[in-house]
Parts: sequence; C-alpha cells; structure tokens
Amino acid sequence: MLGHFQLQSLNQEAEISFLQSALEVEGQFIRTENVVKWVEEQRNALKIDINAIPFNKLNKWSFHPETGNLVHASGKFFSIEGIKINTNWGNVPSWTQPIINQPEVGYLGIIAKKINGILHFLMQAKIEPGNINYVQLSPTLQATKSNYSRVHEGNAPLYLEYFASKKGKVLLDQLQSEQGARFLKKRNRNIIIEVTGDIPMYDNFCWLTLGQIKSLLQIDNLINMDTRTVLSGISFGSYAVNGINLVDKLVHRSTNEESHKRQMLITALDTSAALHSFEEIISWITSLKSTYDLEVSRIPLKDVQKWEKNENELYHEDHKYFSVIAVDVHISNREVVNWSQPIVKSAQEGIIGFIVRKINGVLHFLVQAKIEAGNFDILELAPTVQCLTGNYRKGLNDYEVPFINEVLNAPKENIIYKAFQSEEGGRFYREQNLNLIVEMDERFSQEVPENYCWMTLNQLYTFIKFNNYLNIQARSLLASVTF
Amino acid sequence: MLGHFQLQSLNQEAEISFLQSALEVEGQFIRTENVVKWVEEQRNALKIDINAIPFNKLNKWSFHPETGNLVHASGKFFSIEGIKINTNWGNVPSWTQPIINQPEVGYLGIIAKKINGILHFLMQAKIEPGNINYVQLSPTLQATKSNYSRVHEGNAPLYLEYFASKKGKVLLDQLQSEQGARFLKKRNRNIIIEVTGDIPMYDNFCWLTLGQIKSLLQIDNLINMDTRTVLSGISFGSYAVNGINLVDKLVHRSTNEESHKRQMLITALDTSAALHSFEEIISWITSLKSTYDLEVSRIPLKDVQKWEKNENELYHEDHKYFSVIAVDVHISNREVVNWSQPIVKSAQEGIIGFIVRKINGVLHFLVQAKIEAGNFDILELAPTVQCLTGNYRKGLNDYEVPFINEVLNAPKENIIYKAFQSEEGGRFYREQNLNLIVEMDERFSQEVPENYCWMTLNQLYTFIKFNNYLNIQARSLLASVTF
Repeated sequence: MLGHFQLQSLNQEAEISFLQSALEVEGQFIRTENVVKWVEEQRNALKIDINAIPFNKLNKWSFHPETGNLVHASGKFFSIEGIKINTNWGNVPSWTQPIINQPEVGYLGIIAKKINGILHFLMQAKIEPGNINYVQLSPTLQATKSNYSRVHEGNAPLYLEYFASKKGKVLLDQLQSEQGARFLKKRNRNIIIEVTGDIPMYDNFCWLTLGQIKSLLQIDNLINMDTRTVLSGISFGSYAVNGINLVDKLVHRSTNEESHKRQMLITALDTSAALHSFEEIISWITSLKSTYDLEVSRIPLKDVQKWEKNENELYHEDHKYFSVIAVDVHISNREVVNWSQPIVKSAQEGIIGFIVRKINGVLHFLVQAKIEAGNFDILELAPTVQCLTGNYRKGLNDYEVPFINEVLNAPKENIIYKAFQSEEGGRFYREQNLNLIVEMDERFSQEVPENYCWMTLNQLYTFIKFNNYLNIQARSLLASVTF
Repeated sequence: MLGHFQLQSLNQEAEISFLQSALEVEGQFIRTENVVKWVEEQRNALKIDINAIPFNKLNKWSFHPETGNLVHASGKFFSIEGIKINTNWGNVPSWTQPIINQPEVGYLGIIAKKINGILHFLMQAKIEPGNINYVQLSPTLQATKSNYSRVHEGNAPLYLEYFASKKGKVLLDQLQSEQGARFLKKRNRNIIIEVTGDIPMYDNFCWLTLGQIKSLLQIDNLINMDTRTVLSGISFGSYAVNGINLVDKLVHRSTNEESHKRQMLITALDTSAALHSFEEIISWITSLKSTYDLEVSRIPLKDVQKWEKNENELYHEDHKYFSVIAVDVHISNREVVNWSQPIVKSAQEGIIGFIVRKINGVLHFLVQAKIEAGNFDILELAPTVQCLTGNYRKGLNDYEVPFINEVLNAPKENIIYKAFQSEEGGRFYREQNLNLIVEMDERFSQEVPENYCWMTLNQLYTFIKFNNYLNIQARSLLASVTF
C-alpha cells in the first residue's frame, strides 16, 4: 500500500480520456470549420417566430391575484416572485427584487462515447426562445423535472433514459448552481455518461471532441450556457497521478514553450506551485462566510419596491438591472410547436473576465468571492470581474468595479480569450456577455483586496468537484480554456 | 515541477504535527490519568445551582404575543420558533416542529502550541448549564457572536483576540453544521490557531496533546461536543504526501499488526484502497439530492401542530422527540453569575454508531446519507445508525432503524469504541448518547441500501474539509478514533 499516490482513487482513466479528447481539435465526424454551417442549416430547417407580447396574451401564465407572482396555471415550471435581502456586504444593506423561483433540479446531461479511442460528446443543435441566434450547441439532454415528468403532456425528451436509468458509465455527476442574481437557489444536475454500444442518432445531433467544442467556444454565441457549465466540471488530473510520461508527451504537443495553450495545460495539471494551500483557501472562504450575512426571504412580487409593471414589462424604476417580459413562440418543422412564457431581459450587455498571472512560474487565476441574492450559501467564487446587471463603463456606474480597466484595456497580445457568450436561452432574452481572459505580467500586484484570491486552474477544478463553490459565470468562462 | 505529488499544496507540516500529537498519549503537563480529577477540582471550586423553572420566571425571555416564538428581549442569542417541512423522503411527507433558530456564526476555537516539539491544545474546563456533570473539557474559545459582541454586557471572552485578529498560524478553519434535527441551518466556525510565543494562562485551562484528548474520549461525558467537532476536522495527510518513512515508522509504533489502532491509522492515511472514488461518492450524493426534496419554511411557533405547552414545558403530544424547558442558573466562584434561559431536553437517550468493515484490506466506514429538517443542504453524511429522537429498541419504534441490531449486539471483541457522550450543554439539557464503533467481518454484506455508502477514513477527512458534508454526529464520533 505504501508508495501509492494521493487521490489515486480519482477516476484516472476518465481524466486521461478527457485530456486526450481536449487535445483533439478535429473529430471523427464533422470538421470543426463546418460546425457553424451545420448549425445554420439546423436553424434554417425551422420556421421560427418569436415575438414579445403583452402579459395578458400569455397562455396559462398570469399574475396571481393575491401575491402578484407571475405563475403558470399548473404551478410547475418556474415563477417570478419577490425576495427581500438584508446583508452587511457592500453599500446597500437591504433591498427587494424580483427573482426566478424554479425549485426543481433539472438534468444537463451529455452522452460521451469513445470513437477510434477518443471521447466524443453528443451535442444537440437546440432552439431556445431567448437565444440571440435561435439555435446553439446544447447538451444531449436539457430537461427540467417538469419537462421529463411530462407537465407539457408531450413526449419524454430524447435520450432521457440514458441518464434516468444510468445506461452507461458516469464520468461526472455534480449539482451546480445557476445565476445567483436571477435565480433563487437554483441548481442543476450536470452529468456526463459514457456509453459503449450503438445509440440512436437524430438529425440535429452530432459527435464532437472536447477539443472541437473548446475551439468552437472561440466563436460568439455558438456553445450554449448549459454546455459550458457541464464541460467546466471536467478535470484532467495531475502530473503525478496521471503518469509523467503521458502528460509530458501531451504538454509538448503545444509547440511554443510560452504559448498560452501550454501555460493553461500546465496550470490545469500542476499541483506543486499553488500560492495558497487548500486549507488557506478554505479558511479565506470560511472567514468571509462568517463575517458577511445574507438573509433572503421570499415575499410576494407585489411587495417588491422600486419595480414597476406595465402591460408589457416588469422593470426597475431606473431601467437598471433587468426586466421581465413575455414572448410568444412558434416553431415549425415537421410539426408545429407553440407556447408562450415570461422571460428575463437584461438592461445591457455585461462583462465576465478572469485576470491570470504567473506566480511561481504557473498561471494563477484571480478569483473573486461574490455575494449574490440567490446564492445557495452566501457567496460563490466568481471571475475577477463580473458585471451582468449594471453599466460597467467607468463613470456610468453607481460604484467602482475593481479591475475593470485592467480587463477592458489589456493589450491585444495579453488577451488569452475573448468572445461573446449567451446566457441560457430558456430563461434569458437575447442576453450576451463579453467573456475575457487576460494575462497580466509581474507588474500586476500579487496583493489583492480581501475578497479576491489567486488559485491555479487545478485548484479551481477541485473546488468545482465539491459543488457550490464556483458560480456559473466562473465555470462558464473556465470551459473556454483551451490546451 | 514533474514528479511532485498530488495535493502537495495541502498543509503537510501541519498534518505531520497533528499526527505526531495524536500518537502522544502523554503530554508535557498534566498526566492523562489525572485529568478527570483536575476537571472535578474545577467543578468543586464552583458553587453551582441549576434548576428547572416555569417559563414565566424566565428573565428577559418570553413568548412573543403574536408569533408565540420564545425569544430574548434583545432579539439576540437564539429563539425557539416553528418550521414546516415538506419532503418526499421517508414515510411522513409533511410535518411541523419547534426548532432552535440561531442564525449567528459562532467561534469554536482551539489554540495549539508546540511544546518540546509536540503540538498541545489549550483546553478549558467549562461549565455549561445542560452538562450532565456540569463541567467538561471545551475548546479554548466557545463564543457566539452575541457573546463576543457583548450583548451580555460582560467582558470579552478569554483568548478572543487570538482568533479575531488571527494572532498565530491558522491550522484549520472550517464552517461546520450543528444538529439538523434541532437547529435551523446553524453553523459554527471551527478553528485551530497555532501560537509560538507565551500566552496568558488561567486556572481552568490546561494543555493536552491530541493523543491525550483522544484517550480521554474513552471516558463518558468528559470531552464536550464543541471540542469533538473542532478536532474532527483535523486530517493527517496520506502515506504518499507525508513521506513513507515517517508514516511507516509511526504505523509500526502500534505493536499489534491487527490492532484496531493500527487499522484506524491505515484507513486514515491510505489513499489506494477505497472502494469508491471521490467522483462516485459525489455522484451518489448528487443523485440523492436530485431525487429528494426538503422544503423548509419558518412558521410561528403557535402554528406548530401536535405540540403542546404548559407552564413548564413545550412538548410533543406523544411525549416523543424532545421538549423545551426553562432553567435558572446560579454559578459562584470569585464572582456570582446568574441567568435563566430556555433549553432543549431530549425525550430519551439516543445512539450514534458507525459500522466499519475491511474492504480491500482497509477499514471502511458505512456512511448514511441522512435528511434532517434543519440541514443546510437537504442531506448530510451521518453515522450508520443515528437515532437521537426516537426510542431505538426494537418494537418500541414507529419505524425500522437499519443496522441497529448489528450495532447493539456486536460481540465485545468487535467493539472498537463505546462511550456515552454529551450534546452541547449550552442548548441541550443533560443529553447524552451512546457512541459506538463496531467492526463487522466479511459475512457482513458489502451491498448496502441506496442511502448508504462505504468510505475510508481518509475520504471522510477530505469531505469534512470541504464543509457541510458530514453532520455533527458523524464528525463527533470520528473525533474519538484513536491511533
């Protein structure tokens, strides 16, 4: 027993498979450069009609006469309710706001399969009413409990049985949070199942390697949020655990010693150079959670202050943050689908950015501990900069956003990643945010404010595994890291 | 960078210090066999008068005229309120019950110091009104926010500044849960700080090694619950990380190859033999949290059904579970302290037991995923058997308790640990539970029900680190493991 390495019990075989797939920028099927065109074809095969409508034209949705909450007649799906927040964090000790309440845990599931030895992921070209371009690449299965328990009275979603009956080997299975500023403690089950035999294929599905998906994440608004959150949960082990030879060989596939891809692979796999130990990071989180309170109570939507409602929109009196509108959706292909629903519309585009910097020779991510009203446990680990709901350009905001200038004004050669990515199109209306990863040199101080901390990518992967540590924005942005 | 071991970034120096201290059954000061007598002396130095009183004799505590909640005039400390539970777990889909609401995060802090190279812990002989024997060995600091922010208008608690200002090196700093059946989402900050210089000493404090404290845990009701929860958070690293030579030397200090102490040390340090990987265990937890709902809403105490109140007691109509009473407390030494407070009284003694069994040559603990009303996140990992609030003897209960017979009827040679231990004496009145660890042989099936899972001690230590995984009963029982 002596001589074995720590965490041997982690799923080494899966980690190596994931890593090999991440390094394959072409797969066995559709070429990466043709995916955009294929998605367009999927979209063009549909007749799509999505229109904003007044609330009173919603079918089966209405404002409850007593609470004012916006609810579905079945009591299922989700509702727009109110919350009241008290906190000793920040400048505003108390406020009320609307929030999406969707207490059900849904599936975000991806089927994976080894094809010629390389893991491929079964992606779906899926339409969502809020998508800026209608169709994006989504997980194999994306289903709320209302969906799969047939509140719609439709058919069971495709591939549901693979997840519900665990037809395959579970490679990843995590309960992860949604947007804490918009959802009340919402979580989804992020799951990847590996199958071995044949499985039925449908027109709007395709197999891609992890490397292909990561390449496609360089393109604006192509890979949907649900795909990003599931893939962000993948970790790739470490040098020590996964065998030096294999990893060393893989590391050297990146030709340029100093290339960003090579640096990212190193911070993903290294366990020796972290500035802070896990104990130190956990102590930092404990300290913040012990110092700051977040008391959230549900209130009727009608009791929310400073928000107004007209026949088309529920909005903040200063037109800040977001509004709730209603849409009518018509999609026809071989059959016609029609529904209407409330949907959340952001007041403006946001920005999500990580600053990275070499410390001890290895890239570290500057992580922010961020309190948001709907968080499951007071705060979650967020990107260095995350402004979704305010105008972040200097001077136009009520408050200073730390590090915003560094992120926005980074010279081009320091930009490791830059793309617009969408929020989930089932709840958010044409919302895209600028996603950035920028590298700073040693002139950028290692000393950071109380609620920031430097971590390696390997450490972030470990925290993701243990759930409810990284928020969805941080996870989504980490999914875009390429090796 | 290649060749480093996984999790090198864990605090190796601290782990080795903890391990060395755990193996020292005598310290530099008081001999272990004299500790009981010393605690008795501390108790005898006090004049103690604790009496049950009617609710209307409580000073500054009263039932709120509208809600019926039992509250302090300051609005601080804690209150007895009601909750309503809806769940699809178990036989009872909905119920109401009283619960302790104490939203503040308190400190449970221990100061540690290396004396002749061995870590010693500064323990306090502390009186609590609910303690069966009045005085037990407690952490250096045990303080609610109301305590240390002086709601009492008393002095600041001794040693507070070491924790509040981090005067020393933080060895452990975790936010951990309290009893989920009695407290609503209560958590405390469990913290150990290592100091190097001289610190002031007081009569009722003493320095003990971890091995001494573990020895003293063999005695009934001597080490209080707060000490047990703090010490349970200590992990000792692994063979690989901490150097084979050192660990090998330490392992062989236990003379008998097959001794329980040696087997426990192996399961604490081994990372190669676990039946399930972390990913599998996390998937198991994810699956249960996705399947089972726990909806808890706060209600006024007056709306709790099936509970009755007379002038002395709030109790369940069948006299089950627990009751709430009031006590008046007089303690005099050099000065006189007097207060009165509500306190929770259990209906009967409970039992807390882990079954362990060798799998792959290494002891595994049979862990139960248990839903309790006040849990922070639906379920927590609990001992194999945990019945605090019902009569567990066969035939006298409404329901079957899995594995109760195996635990109660284990032959003497299979009992690794057996002692009565107290619940926290600040909130619970003379409540003790039978604590057991029993070993089963290979005739005991590895196949277990859906909500049970086998884990090594090393895995349990990792889950403790990441907070809100193990419940207080499981943690408390793990603290009693001796090497």
